[in-house]
Amino acid sequence: MRYRVTVTLREGILDPQGKAVKGALENLGFEGVDRVRVGKVIDLTLSEGDLETVHEICKKLLVNPVIEDYQIETLEE
Amino acid sequence: MRYRVTVTLREGILDPQGKAVKGALENLGFEGVDRVRVGKVIDLTLSEGDLETVHEICKKLLVNPVIEDYQIETLEE
Repeated sequence: MRYRVTVTLREGILDPQGKAVKGALENLGFEGVDRVRVGKVIDLTLSEGDLETVHEICKKLLVNPVIEDYQIETLEE
Repeated sequence: MRYRVTVTLREGILDPQGKAVKGALENLGFEGVDRVRVGKVIDLTLSEGDLETVHEICKKLLVNPVIEDYQIETLEE
């Protein structure tokens, strides 16, 4: 099975990378960009394990729950 | 409007970060992880502009089309 984990910063956590992207867009002339937040996406292909395994992988390695939230989607094979 | 841009490496492009995550998962005892690919996600809040603006932002700043693909979703406000 294939899963996509999307990890984003929690509300209220500063995002310097997002701020840098916003600044770069302003320099390129894009007006009206109010907010930019950058996160990561991890695509996992598992031959063993299920959604519960993916939650465990998130908790043990991929996500820092103090500052990050995550979502899991199942992808088409 | 809020948009989510998901940037992933094209098929065939080596992903050292994904390989490192796969190795770390093996060391943690997760068996059956066949493949890991890491990408990024950028959430944009625009007060001006539309989907076409987001495509332009991708092409001009966020995405390197030689090695990356991207998808745009519209998010709930």
